[in-house]
Amino acid sequence: MNTLFYNGNLLSFDDDVTLMDNSAVAVKGNSIVFSGKEDSPEYSNIRSEISFDREIDLKGNLIMPGFKNCHTHSGMTFLRSAADDMKLDEWLNKQVFPREALLSEDDIYYATKLAVMEYLTSGITEICDMYLTPDSIARATEETGIRCVQCSGMNDFSQDLDRLRDWYDRLNRGSSLTSFRLGIHAEYTCSEKLLVKVAELSHELKAPVYMHMSETEKEVEGCRERHGGMTPVEYLDSLGLFDYGAVFFHGVHVTDNDIEIIKKRNIAVVTNPASNAKLASGIAPISRYLKEGVTLGIGTDGPASNNCLDMFREMFLVTALAKLKENDASAVDAKEVLKMACSDGARALGTPECDSLSPGKKADLIVIDLDQPNMQPINNTVKNIVYSGSKQNVCLTMIDGVIRYENGRFNIGGDEEKIYNEVQKTVERINRESGIAG
Amino acid sequence: MNTLFYNGNLLSFDDDVTLMDNSAVAVKGNSIVFSGKEDSPEYSNIRSEISFDREIDLKGNLIMPGFKNCHTHSGMTFLRSAADDMKLDEWLNKQVFPREALLSEDDIYYATKLAVMEYLTSGITEICDMYLTPDSIARATEETGIRCVQCSGMNDFSQDLDRLRDWYDRLNRGSSLTSFRLGIHAEYTCSEKLLVKVAELSHELKAPVYMHMSETEKEVEGCRERHGGMTPVEYLDSLGLFDYGAVFFHGVHVTDNDIEIIKKRNIAVVTNPASNAKLASGIAPISRYLKEGVTLGIGTDGPASNNCLDMFREMFLVTALAKLKENDASAVDAKEVLKMACSDGARALGTPECDSLSPGKKADLIVIDLDQPNMQPINNTVKNIVYSGSKQNVCLTMIDGVIRYENGRFNIGGDEEKIYNEVQKTVERINRESGIAG
Repeated sequence: MNTLFYNGNLLSFDDDVTLMDNSAVAVKGNSIVFSGKEDSPEYSNIRSEISFDREIDLKGNLIMPGFKNCHTHSGMTFLRSAADDMKLDEWLNKQVFPREALLSEDDIYYATKLAVMEYLTSGITEICDMYLTPDSIARATEETGIRCVQCSGMNDFSQDLDRLRDWYDRLNRGSSLTSFRLGIHAEYTCSEKLLVKVAELSHELKAPVYMHMSETEKEVEGCRERHGGMTPVEYLDSLGLFDYGAVFFHGVHVTDNDIEIIKKRNIAVVTNPASNAKLASGIAPISRYLKEGVTLGIGTDGPASNNCLDMFREMFLVTALAKLKENDASAVDAKEVLKMACSDGARALGTPECDSLSPGKKADLIVIDLDQPNMQPINNTVKNIVYSGSKQNVCLTMIDGVIRYENGRFNIGGDEEKIYNEVQKTVERINRESGIAG
Repeated sequence: MNTLFYNGNLLSFDDDVTLMDNSAVAVKGNSIVFSGKEDSPEYSNIRSEISFDREIDLKGNLIMPGFKNCHTHSGMTFLRSAADDMKLDEWLNKQVFPREALLSEDDIYYATKLAVMEYLTSGITEICDMYLTPDSIARATEETGIRCVQCSGMNDFSQDLDRLRDWYDRLNRGSSLTSFRLGIHAEYTCSEKLLVKVAELSHELKAPVYMHMSETEKEVEGCRERHGGMTPVEYLDSLGLFDYGAVFFHGVHVTDNDIEIIKKRNIAVVTNPASNAKLASGIAPISRYLKEGVTLGIGTDGPASNNCLDMFREMFLVTALAKLKENDASAVDAKEVLKMACSDGARALGTPECDSLSPGKKADLIVIDLDQPNMQPINNTVKNIVYSGSKQNVCLTMIDGVIRYENGRFNIGGDEEKIYNEVQKTVERINRESGIAG
């Protein structure tokens, strides 16, 4: 299937974030083969060389790489709005954990599909997912066609090294949409014995380790008490866990020395501003990370803590919360935020093949409707997207060359109503079995 | 024109925020004549007594009062994304003021219509607008059919008492959609002589005064320096400006004594969380206001400082920022936020006739599509709206009994493309005349 988009405004992200008008993007199979001005000789060549199955007139709308949601727990849609406005401990121990204990592989399969539908409406073409059942998650994401970097969530209570090794081998050899990374849940849920074994595996596979890191002050204090004053970053580094790099989810409470380690080990940080605000965890030091050259991605976190899976809201929050934190309205320019969401996020997840619309890259792209009041007038399209954009503006989401969402309709190979119904059944069954009020 | 909505879920706001299924809402002319269960005898009576021009099957979707955007400067759409990510002083003095000086009545007319289009997409049925040309604003809002409480923005540089008196008399006697309130821009832009005269007018008309209040720390400090240590709240109270009540926009930086005055004078506070964050002004003490029983509304502020006019984003921010400020994930329950947005906001603006869907109230209502992934599953619909809702879910906006927006199409008596084009022309003319780069 080859698709041509023409008569558009283009943000290709192939160098700086520069808007180009009268532009086209050509997709052959799952790859970009052209992006640029329509009056170029390359465009004439492409038009004569390739036969397109579909030619889409963008009518001046914007075409750009899709958003990368760099941290989520998709399967938690079943918990959306089930428990909010309560203290973190109560929420986790009395609401989340008892319900999660009753989940089946199939529950997570449908709950993940529901999340994918929402990702598509928000222009998200790639996710980084950490949840309980990697096989049924891979089935859900592959069937709905979203690019998914999974990581394990190893801890002392669930998942083990044998299964981790098995997932790593199998899921990295399957669909090109799926990849699998080593991951631990967090410092505070793993024994040192387990952490050392994951570090050994990371050395053996020469692979980075993904993890929740320094999300709350309490977590950092707890680690310091347990480990001779070391922060979680310092402690895990001392075990060799970052020798092949790492990805940190959150990174809200970090010290100067933590940042030195992050730079030295080439660690990427994924910020989750809505979740960090809603759970009162704090505001990550985004200005500082940018100044230090740390690679940054943006995540929604799971729908139980956010509760929506909307990259527009996250983008606004990344810069708005940084401005509050720094007491400086010029902190974290919109352009930096859009780079995190579209290109730096892809690099953070080890998928640089999805970081732009340059020829040879994967065809993971979205079309943004500019012909809506929130996108008017045209003073600055990049700032319009970050400060004023909404899911409402997403009119098309293509992943790996396949259009999965267009003008409110899904193309995910299944019955959307069935997905809604199955997740609702999960909710009702688990409320009943857990005895927790719905 | 009479309209019946049936087969819906209802949040009427007639007492507490309770969701009712299998419900209907009947609209006769511009008023609600019924809201409640379909199996009630009142519903049978309504169905037999009234002939409906249109009967709308809600298919289980949610019907509720529209959102009240309690603070905005609609005409500033021409500045959206023209100047962001800069210090407040630079933004105001080098970007906003020089451009505003070149605006005509007609520029503001079209810019306001553009804002109204966006309000409708976000389920906003009523706005409180403060801007430069009340007559052309009233023309724009009446033609597009939105309910508009205007207030003057009296200051030492523009607007004067004679014009204020004239607007007050004329605009309060015209369309029932429009009302006009006494307003000053802010303490720091008004001489004492002017403030005293506005206080006298407030006494004569027995009318409250609307104003920007304690938005930034700098503003409070400046007032203390000018007025013997008094805060802006204390100073204006000492001039008798609040003797007939007041509405404060922002109220971010207030003291214990300020709050005592707010309570004593029965002053309503309108919070603008996105604008306050984006301009690094701070976080308003919403938990405290709620505890003290202060009437609260929510505003988007103008599109130059926000930049979008989206009540869903504001609702999330009201609670998320309160949680961060209080370091408490249980601060400001979603239900309180929805009350501010739908009913308390109407009372804050002196329009209690729009605060619920009880019989006799104005037919200002919206329909929320629950059949979208971000509203699934159904654990708690109120929390879904506040934490996960988006403009995308608004499928219908009715004001004063007239459907102004339905399934992405506007009914605003005019050509939407012309509105876009006229605002774009304003942008280009003003960039040229001001010499400020676009």
